[in-house]
Amino acid sequence: MSDSLADLHPLDAATLLTPGPDGTLIGRTSPAYANMVGPFGGTTAALLLRAALEHEKRIGEPVAQTVNFCAAIADGEFSVSVREIRSGRSVQHLYVELRQGETVAANATVVCAVRSPTWTHQSATMPQVPAADAVPVLSGKPPLAWLSRYDFRYTEGPPFIPGTAHAEPQSARSVLWVADNPARPLDHLSLAAICDVFIVRIFQVRGTRTPAGTVSITSYFHASAEELAAQGTRPVLAKADSMRFGGQFFDQQGEVWSDSGKLLASTTQVVWFRD
Amino acid sequence: MSDSLADLHPLDAATLLTPGPDGTLIGRTSPAYANMVGPFGGTTAALLLRAALEHEKRIGEPVAQTVNFCAAIADGEFSVSVREIRSGRSVQHLYVELRQGETVAANATVVCAVRSPTWTHQSATMPQVPAADAVPVLSGKPPLAWLSRYDFRYTEGPPFIPGTAHAEPQSARSVLWVADNPARPLDHLSLAAICDVFIVRIFQVRGTRTPAGTVSITSYFHASAEELAAQGTRPVLAKADSMRFGGQFFDQQGEVWSDSGKLLASTTQVVWFRD
Repeated sequence: MSDSLADLHPLDAATLLTPGPDGTLIGRTSPAYANMVGPFGGTTAALLLRAALEHEKRIGEPVAQTVNFCAAIADGEFSVSVREIRSGRSVQHLYVELRQGETVAANATVVCAVRSPTWTHQSATMPQVPAADAVPVLSGKPPLAWLSRYDFRYTEGPPFIPGTAHAEPQSARSVLWVADNPARPLDHLSLAAICDVFIVRIFQVRGTRTPAGTVSITSYFHASAEELAAQGTRPVLAKADSMRFGGQFFDQQGEVWSDSGKLLASTTQVVWFRD
Repeated sequence: MSDSLADLHPLDAATLLTPGPDGTLIGRTSPAYANMVGPFGGTTAALLLRAALEHEKRIGEPVAQTVNFCAAIADGEFSVSVREIRSGRSVQHLYVELRQGETVAANATVVCAVRSPTWTHQSATMPQVPAADAVPVLSGKPPLAWLSRYDFRYTEGPPFIPGTAHAEPQSARSVLWVADNPARPLDHLSLAAICDVFIVRIFQVRGTRTPAGTVSITSYFHASAEELAAQGTRPVLAKADSMRFGGQFFDQQGEVWSDSGKLLASTTQVVWFRD
């Protein structure tokens, strides 16, 4: 790792892309965000979003992103390609693929837009919880590198997995303050990653671990870059819940709020599981 | 229109694809589902899903679909291409594009899977509402063809748009029974369309109409083909809500329930609007 890479925040290092042959971009997995198998999915989402945002014809700011996790990403190098699908006057659609050899390991559709001021209204309200500094930071986390890249302060549904099944399924809901560790001013990249920061819902509901992995995640970014910059490095409030588990899949709905009560992102994902 | 096409349900006719040159599929917009500009988005979602499901290498049943509406679809012919992105042992990723001339008017990512029985649990509960046959069918609908392709029975948040702004923003929530008209046994195609059946939330919240259109919709299908077939032609319960409006976009979250209280699909979309 070069000195300059070592100076970067781990998320910026993990999402760094350099020009490769044939107009593709080259990146590599980062040990700092290693998960059970391959990298933390949030890092992949941030990386594919960054590839889109760095496209030479990109306009505006990200509004929506869907990432499909198509195959396990092996430790090491990968290539990323970005294709401009359609650019209107103010709305743009991009398509991104991450490959290792011949395998498409992930793909994404990204919507960007030059957003103009309009009527504004927030019909949802932030969960009422204690302020972040009144909630202890979660300690005793399992030794997965990516878990150390975030400070979690749970106010509801902490990730305690006893390892034996609960007599009755528990609530799938969790609410927590979350911040990058080390601290990093919030932007669309870190927000995209935070949208995937929730511990696998089925672990909490059943009380046991099972092989599981996100298959597809969709995140909508409600906040401008300016609004995210105003949040700075302070923790954001994240909420997750699920509705139905069965036939090897379950859903998850999530929200990410500023500490001033503005909805920064809404997100949903579908997760594969076994047994 | 040939006799055989006239015998089809309008949704089956609107999503009919025939082999074209270069391995693409050819379809055409259907007047039966015409919207303000171009076809009802739900028809496009169903069409792109059908293209994926008819791919020669498709495995299993649909689990997730994201559709991006990239440009207005003009009345008339279009071509559809399907690309196999990655097929694992039981999970498959496909990518679909709809073109008119050189313009990609819509694209979609589709996840299919051969689903095996697992632990099952439904943590969400269906909204408590009167049975469908106790709720009158909405009449006096605006003269948009697609609105006539559904029977709507609202139990909350009916689509009454006074045309002058409400003094205070109204709730974005609606709950309604919905069924294809003419009747059609439920399957993944009609379910994909029903996921987009909600009247534009901002009209209801503000009380006025404004130019608006879905930019991206994501739907997760929780029910198997067998479970959907058991629902038959009886109305399903649909619920929609939104969280934040501003900067020309707002979000929508939706759910579609069987009349026996099972969550058939969860869906979310981001919608562009003006002013």
